[in-house]
Amino acid sequence: MNHNGRRNYDSKKLGGQTYALAAPPSIAGHANVVGKKEGQGPLADSFDLISQDASFGQRTWEKAETAMQKLALTHALEKAGQPLSALDFLFAGDLLNQCIGSGYAARDLGVPYFGLYGACSTMAESLALAAMTLDGGFGEWAAAAASSHFCSAERQYRTPLEYGGQRTPTAQWTATAAGAVVLTKEGPGPYITHVTVGKINDKGIKDANNMGAAMTWAAYDTISCHLRDTGRAPSYYDLIVTGDLGRLGRSLLVELFQRDGVELSGNYNDCGCLLYDCDTQDVHCGGSGCGCSACVLTGYLLNGMREGKWNRLLFCATGALHSPTAVGQGESIPGICHAVAICNCREG
Amino acid sequence: MNHNGRRNYDSKKLGGQTYALAAPPSIAGHANVVGKKEGQGPLADSFDLISQDASFGQRTWEKAETAMQKLALTHALEKAGQPLSALDFLFAGDLLNQCIGSGYAARDLGVPYFGLYGACSTMAESLALAAMTLDGGFGEWAAAAASSHFCSAERQYRTPLEYGGQRTPTAQWTATAAGAVVLTKEGPGPYITHVTVGKINDKGIKDANNMGAAMTWAAYDTISCHLRDTGRAPSYYDLIVTGDLGRLGRSLLVELFQRDGVELSGNYNDCGCLLYDCDTQDVHCGGSGCGCSACVLTGYLLNGMREGKWNRLLFCATGALHSPTAVGQGESIPGICHAVAICNCREG
Repeated sequence: MNHNGRRNYDSKKLGGQTYALAAPPSIAGHANVVGKKEGQGPLADSFDLISQDASFGQRTWEKAETAMQKLALTHALEKAGQPLSALDFLFAGDLLNQCIGSGYAARDLGVPYFGLYGACSTMAESLALAAMTLDGGFGEWAAAAASSHFCSAERQYRTPLEYGGQRTPTAQWTATAAGAVVLTKEGPGPYITHVTVGKINDKGIKDANNMGAAMTWAAYDTISCHLRDTGRAPSYYDLIVTGDLGRLGRSLLVELFQRDGVELSGNYNDCGCLLYDCDTQDVHCGGSGCGCSACVLTGYLLNGMREGKWNRLLFCATGALHSPTAVGQGESIPGICHAVAICNCREG
Repeated sequence: MNHNGRRNYDSKKLGGQTYALAAPPSIAGHANVVGKKEGQGPLADSFDLISQDASFGQRTWEKAETAMQKLALTHALEKAGQPLSALDFLFAGDLLNQCIGSGYAARDLGVPYFGLYGACSTMAESLALAAMTLDGGFGEWAAAAASSHFCSAERQYRTPLEYGGQRTPTAQWTATAAGAVVLTKEGPGPYITHVTVGKINDKGIKDANNMGAAMTWAAYDTISCHLRDTGRAPSYYDLIVTGDLGRLGRSLLVELFQRDGVELSGNYNDCGCLLYDCDTQDVHCGGSGCGCSACVLTGYLLNGMREGKWNRLLFCATGALHSPTAVGQGESIPGICHAVAICNCREG
């Protein structure tokens, strides 16, 4: 305390856009729910629930998405051994207009709620804010959740499924998936140790069927910033994962770093490339949607960390902040990427 | 520091959903931008910019909303004497699908960005998160912003203006307005001293033209929680302001508290009732939209605090988290309310 009776909190800012958490929150539970197609992909073993019914027992795709987010969150809380009432905060978002996937889920769960819109960056945005909130001394338990549904997204962003529209080679497949992470102030890890908050990047790409390219610059900007702010080389991390640039975006990102003399390919991958078998599952450039990075993080990645496969992960979810209205008005597609460092050791 | 090298941050939770900030951030600047109708209302003197052109020089209503949010934020930064580059975080949101009002504003401004969706509660949600982030030791400067535009909202939520639809008696008028607040860690105030994070309340109201009623329960829940958690009576505050319940919602809220034996009417008002002259401006039950509470806070309310008219303000922005799709699918309208205590004295 200083003479004003105020606590002297040192800034956690490392410079640039990166913050080192003083008391890294621990991941106490993580869970996911996916649809049939995701359950047929290479990560099938890492999912908590694979539903053969894309409607999740609901009458509409939008209600199905709400059901998915509730399932993911309640299951993550079960794994954390906590009741819903323990949650001090839920940070959540999705792709639907007015974020109704998350809003109606939070209504039914009855928890203090901060609604987010970060498009496909939502899993990193929610995780960053949940971690910062606990680290800042607010509450004991916080959750982060995100979801997407192929059918609700196709109808809203493109054409109704019944239309049978052709997909371009650069298109990605919106994942039917939800993921949730439960964080707590104290625990055995893995820990959220650093957060790099993204700025929006827009290089003028207007093709809404090529979002990998639109988001790559944001990923490049945020990851570069993170490495510069922390003084770390990419090799510091066992794995750097973007989500979800897809095959095209992934190769563009590797190329952008190569121009800087930085080799990313050895320990780098993308959630959009991991979720599906791009060669056999007809997903063209890979997966996308808030649920893509959410289910890859809460399954394959965090399971792998618990198994000691990786000890230091840089999770960089990417989002395209356009809308059909904006694109129809001639606007280009803004991309954003938030990076969250997750480490088995509290010191990073 | 304890033996693990970790800082011992005490929890700031007072119980329930309320947090007392340890180092209350100071409001260094606040500004707003409104349209012609708002400029003809009783708060005209409190606006920084009244535009006679609802398009704000843009080709579409959506781009006009982006322009408004940029104007409000840059003007708030000017008042704070800070360049855009000083901003560590921008928390912002709006009503548009995929929050493009805020997303494109943040793109053009080039600042680290957390996108929010809280419907008309966004000004309180963004202010709460910006304050908690600074109080938590992250960065020095943070901004909170929200906007709405009558024309973009009518088209998206109801019918195109050209349709000339009749409005029901319980309808509210979406404000063409944007507001922004710039916070900093140290300063002469006013200070954000407490935050009460809302849960979603839904009493089954399905009439999208009666949002005041839909949101009133959330306001009742959050304000009750705040008073209980802090041990304060309503009279502790010079003014309690909801935003934006409108005339019907305001009277319902007073009645709900009366049932508990709590008299709210003496020092209570609503941004939706303050913004327009409901008797002469043909707005039926009053104002609404994220921009309504944003421009009333950043004009009338914060100006009044600086003039010493009020020293303790409880700002409780309310949002309806429905969408046309959800209502079309038979869903009821979930309401949320976040409360932020703003005081001229750091101790509250």
